Amino acid sequence: MVGFGVVAQSFADIITEEAKKLERDYGLRPKIVGVVDSKGAAAAPEGLDVSKALQAKRSKGTLEQLGQGIYSEGRNALDVIREVECEVVVESTPTELSKGEPGLSHVRAAIREGRHVVCVNKGPLAVAMPALMELAHHNKVMFKFSGTVGGGTPVLDFAKKCLEGSKIKTISGILNGTSNYILSRMAAEGVAMKDALAEAQKLGYAEADPTYDVGGFDTACKLVITSNYVLGTQLSIKDVDTRGIADVSVADIERARAKDRVVKLIGKVDKDATVSPQEITTTHPLNVSGTFNAISFDTYPAGEITLVGKGAGGKETASAVLRDLIEIRRTFAR
Amino acid sequence: MVGFGVVAQSFADIITEEAKKLERDYGLRPKIVGVVDSKGAAAAPEGLDVSKALQAKRSKGTLEQLGQGIYSEGRNALDVIREVECEVVVESTPTELSKGEPGLSHVRAAIREGRHVVCVNKGPLAVAMPALMELAHHNKVMFKFSGTVGGGTPVLDFAKKCLEGSKIKTISGILNGTSNYILSRMAAEGVAMKDALAEAQKLGYAEADPTYDVGGFDTACKLVITSNYVLGTQLSIKDVDTRGIADVSVADIERARAKDRVVKLIGKVDKDATVSPQEITTTHPLNVSGTFNAISFDTYPAGEITLVGKGAGGKETASAVLRDLIEIRRTFAR
Repeated sequence: MVGFGVVAQSFADIITEEAKKLERDYGLRPKIVGVVDSKGAAAAPEGLDVSKALQAKRSKGTLEQLGQGIYSEGRNALDVIREVECEVVVESTPTELSKGEPGLSHVRAAIREGRHVVCVNKGPLAVAMPALMELAHHNKVMFKFSGTVGGGTPVLDFAKKCLEGSKIKTISGILNGTSNYILSRMAAEGVAMKDALAEAQKLGYAEADPTYDVGGFDTACKLVITSNYVLGTQLSIKDVDTRGIADVSVADIERARAKDRVVKLIGKVDKDATVSPQEITTTHPLNVSGTFNAISFDTYPAGEITLVGKGAGGKETASAVLRDLIEIRRTFAR
Repeated sequence: MVGFGVVAQSFADIITEEAKKLERDYGLRPKIVGVVDSKGAAAAPEGLDVSKALQAKRSKGTLEQLGQGIYSEGRNALDVIREVECEVVVESTPTELSKGEPGLSHVRAAIREGRHVVCVNKGPLAVAMPALMELAHHNKVMFKFSGTVGGGTPVLDFAKKCLEGSKIKTISGILNGTSNYILSRMAAEGVAMKDALAEAQKLGYAEADPTYDVGGFDTACKLVITSNYVLGTQLSIKDVDTRGIADVSVADIERARAKDRVVKLIGKVDKDATVSPQEITTTHPLNVSGTFNAISFDTYPAGEITLVGKGAGGKETASAVLRDLIEIRRTFAR
């Protein structure tokens, strides 16, 4: 496990809690043999004691005093990926969009070592998804990333597994809970953007630097990933015409309301890929409020189908990591 | 094809239109070797001319003057199922809920003859789903029924294929477009139930006898099918505590509105299976308007996930028949 933040910790929780069910239903007995956090790495070929690792991380913010396995301060993630024997690398370091690093190097190294990869980090995908898909194919490993779009809501699986025989014409969605929360608060209470943002920051829905969410970049990442995976495009984040919600005013929202419409930050791919604030009717299935995410697939002949769920959350996103792991197990089980 | 109404005709249209794509993408070359309508049956082992069959049906209301194959007035569906060599029977005769007939006999006969079955008729499933699943298993054939819930919206596939590793705790949904249309009109315009119903009948959303939709029985059928398929229960429609929308008044809707709520006909399964009008908050993902359907799966740890789409329509529902056929092809391809 490269990265040991909220999602990775929740994943460790779940595979501990659900160990019996996972073995019974899927023949899956996951063993965590290495964890890299921002300070160093712990490794144990026989499997780390997950509850102790979680306790150490949660109480001391580091795995250093785990008292088990090897903990090496400042040990490099790339060394661990190469040296610790494992079947799957779960990459969950923070998203970075200019070069996709350090996640991109982690994913590349893991694939080259013949490890399957479950990636929760959008950076490597936003920057270099087509190349990574190709690299994984060439190295005959699975490269999965269900948790990058929709949190625990299985957006990518749905489009791939449930719409066979129908053609997907366009994809449009509300893919960033922070922006949607801010717009929902502006609409419900008439509060200004900056106050709604401050409120979102206070509640932990928005980062201190909100550019990534409010500027539309998180939505653009998710659009790139969905479009490439579902429609077979070869986009990177540079191909997305991205405009965030910074200029949306309460007056804009009021004008929309007078026409029975709401203003939402919509990512859309048809012939172009765009992210921008759009007016939609109040009865449109994408009109979800608060931190919900929603994505609509306009298909023929199955019609327009929308998936709604929480787009974030540690446990929820960890469930997507688990789904990927189950699929890897099934595909490679002998 | 047993039954040749709107869905079956749309299905015939689609496999004609999309023939190249189906062969290229799925190795599927469907050939319709027999069609039974309410007046008789046409059959041709080499394949009926689909466009001629559609033309005859649409212009004359019968296949009698097809001028090709055998047309035998009054010929029994059971005879055709037994005598015409085929791999798959598509059952789409009208839903009947007291005994599930004549669909139930058709499905049984088809399975016993070793035919795979794609069933669009809710009657046999509402009455005898566990027995039919068992019969299909025993006869080593596939028994699929994606088109019975959600029209073209892949509700059943979604729950089965996309939520692995998560536990579904409850299922609740708006599964009947007619009732939802009526309630939406009552809420939007303050029109009385009987006027909204008359309007729905005029627009073709409601039958002359609206009991099946408005009485909650269609919702109950879909709940039984979803619960049995997804949760592994063994329900029949008799096990569902069913109350329709007949008693809902504009005053009820107004009272709900004062609390920021809407009245919806909700089918729900947790420890019990119930259909009844319920108040939900306006921001709830199930709050869809008009003829939309929506179904929520409350899961752990993936969270609450809702699927929204058109719950009916010939082309849309035919896309579900096609999905089932593709799955049969894939499972049995050598």
